[in-house]
Amino acid sequence: MSQIRVGIVGYGNLGKGVELAIRSNPDMALAFVATRRAPETVSIKTQGVPVYQYSDLAAHKDEADVVIVCGGSATDLPKQTPELAKLFNVIDSFDTHARIPEHFDNVDSAAKESGHVAMISVGWDPGMFSLARLYGNCILPDGKDYTFWGKGVSQGHSDAIRRVEGVQDGKQYTVPVEATMEAVRRGEQPELTTRQKHHRECYVVAKPGADLAKIEQDIKTMPNYFDEYDTTVHFISQEELNRDHAGIPHGGFVMRSGITGENGEHKHLIEYSLKLDSNPEFTTNVLVAFARAVARFASESSFGCKTVFDVPPAYLSPLDGSVLRAHML
Amino acid sequence: MSQIRVGIVGYGNLGKGVELAIRSNPDMALAFVATRRAPETVSIKTQGVPVYQYSDLAAHKDEADVVIVCGGSATDLPKQTPELAKLFNVIDSFDTHARIPEHFDNVDSAAKESGHVAMISVGWDPGMFSLARLYGNCILPDGKDYTFWGKGVSQGHSDAIRRVEGVQDGKQYTVPVEATMEAVRRGEQPELTTRQKHHRECYVVAKPGADLAKIEQDIKTMPNYFDEYDTTVHFISQEELNRDHAGIPHGGFVMRSGITGENGEHKHLIEYSLKLDSNPEFTTNVLVAFARAVARFASESSFGCKTVFDVPPAYLSPLDGSVLRAHML
Repeated sequence: MSQIRVGIVGYGNLGKGVELAIRSNPDMALAFVATRRAPETVSIKTQGVPVYQYSDLAAHKDEADVVIVCGGSATDLPKQTPELAKLFNVIDSFDTHARIPEHFDNVDSAAKESGHVAMISVGWDPGMFSLARLYGNCILPDGKDYTFWGKGVSQGHSDAIRRVEGVQDGKQYTVPVEATMEAVRRGEQPELTTRQKHHRECYVVAKPGADLAKIEQDIKTMPNYFDEYDTTVHFISQEELNRDHAGIPHGGFVMRSGITGENGEHKHLIEYSLKLDSNPEFTTNVLVAFARAVARFASESSFGCKTVFDVPPAYLSPLDGSVLRAHML
Repeated sequence: MSQIRVGIVGYGNLGKGVELAIRSNPDMALAFVATRRAPETVSIKTQGVPVYQYSDLAAHKDEADVVIVCGGSATDLPKQTPELAKLFNVIDSFDTHARIPEHFDNVDSAAKESGHVAMISVGWDPGMFSLARLYGNCILPDGKDYTFWGKGVSQGHSDAIRRVEGVQDGKQYTVPVEATMEAVRRGEQPELTTRQKHHRECYVVAKPGADLAKIEQDIKTMPNYFDEYDTTVHFISQEELNRDHAGIPHGGFVMRSGITGENGEHKHLIEYSLKLDSNPEFTTNVLVAFARAVARFASESSFGCKTVFDVPPAYLSPLDGSVLRAHML
């Protein structure tokens, strides 16, 4: 069987992660990288693969079986995924939960009109965590959902710290509250406040002469970002920040706590968790696996927009159904 | 929309669990229970629902949209699932891993010839654990699988204890080795022996005057069942056994440990775990959710044998795709 030709649009953390992930999937080949920058200024890791200008992609529409759109959810993907779905089968990691229905509709029209497959919101949340929630809800209809994130770096909260007066640099970790998770695991089905679920740990480099007490106060009382949480602020040096906090780890837990039995006397807990050294590299590995399903749907002419909920798990694997049944079932 | 009419074949632990599970799924209704016993001797919990004799089922083939076959994997299901697939859309929990390919082929022929949907090996292992293995393998192709079972009651090992000379009653728990699970969680990717993965804990009621040392020795050295494990034997009274060990709890852990990055420098762990007060009731809840997918496949005339690998997760839910995307993605 011929390889699945994968195009990458956008060459930041995600695009670079996709490029690496393709190397671990022998049934796939990198077809091209596209960028909005001047292509000659972008140097990629795979020899012999062309770098195209985003605006020229129509001329290359037959060169990829699937294009992975590696832009940001705020402004890039709402524009690019529908645009690209007119030319290619596409997949993205759109993660603004509240705007998924609108994004779905835009991408669905573009894909159906042009006869393409498009898959949106693929990653770990939305993505694998969404699947854990769906399976859990269907198996234990009498139950309650819990999602905890962390321990991991929140880019948005780290940016917010760095905007505080007197702060030179900083990084924020979201940390799930262990005692709360244990209560859920015991089947207590608690109602939880924001504060009970997560706390926020900040590593801050202050500018020389800055007022540390004021920085700490400004962070802890920042509306939306920190005021509803228990927040810890650690002041460290730039060297310590660079040495100990350079990575982008993340992870989290999805729990479904439910009951069965004639009088609800039996408790059950389903737990799905991730512990990730690199958030973007794990996300791209998920994208690449689901890109295989996009190619499969395209071969069936099953056009339009899809999500992880629509994908038979066997479509993620390069292996034949009989092999999967014999070795993995 | 009209309800999905579900038939139950076999009224043991599983059949009774299905009957309860249907009550938690308002889009489903119990159509009938069938048994190989004399129907008038079987009293079920749902009023107004008929109990049929297994051999008369052909006369009732239009009364159920899906039949859940609740027999044992050793002798019942290999015979009943193909037989029933000629009359109904069916689903079973066949769990003899090594014989799945053979069972699949038999059921597939029967279902295709008669124009029915059949789904086999649905439960938690095979079933939800198989899904965790498949997703994990596809997302982290450079990695290693680990499955741990327990803490939970093994029926086969409990039966084996009760056959030992001098034993009046007994129950065996399979217990995963915590230190080994922690090593896997740290990303060490160890090669593990049988002994390193699980130990076996036995609660034994001896007959009056029996030789306890000999019982303990006979259990610990029993080939296949115990000799490859570290086994602990506790002698307790029948009252204690009845009071403290009456339940059928189980559970387990599926882990995928993998690496990404230019030089494999980033470790990732995906962990899926279950903690179940009632093994049969959880299994039947899984069966009932997948029965919904069987009905959906039947409405598409997508006939033949399927497994959990073939089911788009959205097919497990009574909710519309747009609702799932808005609230669960």
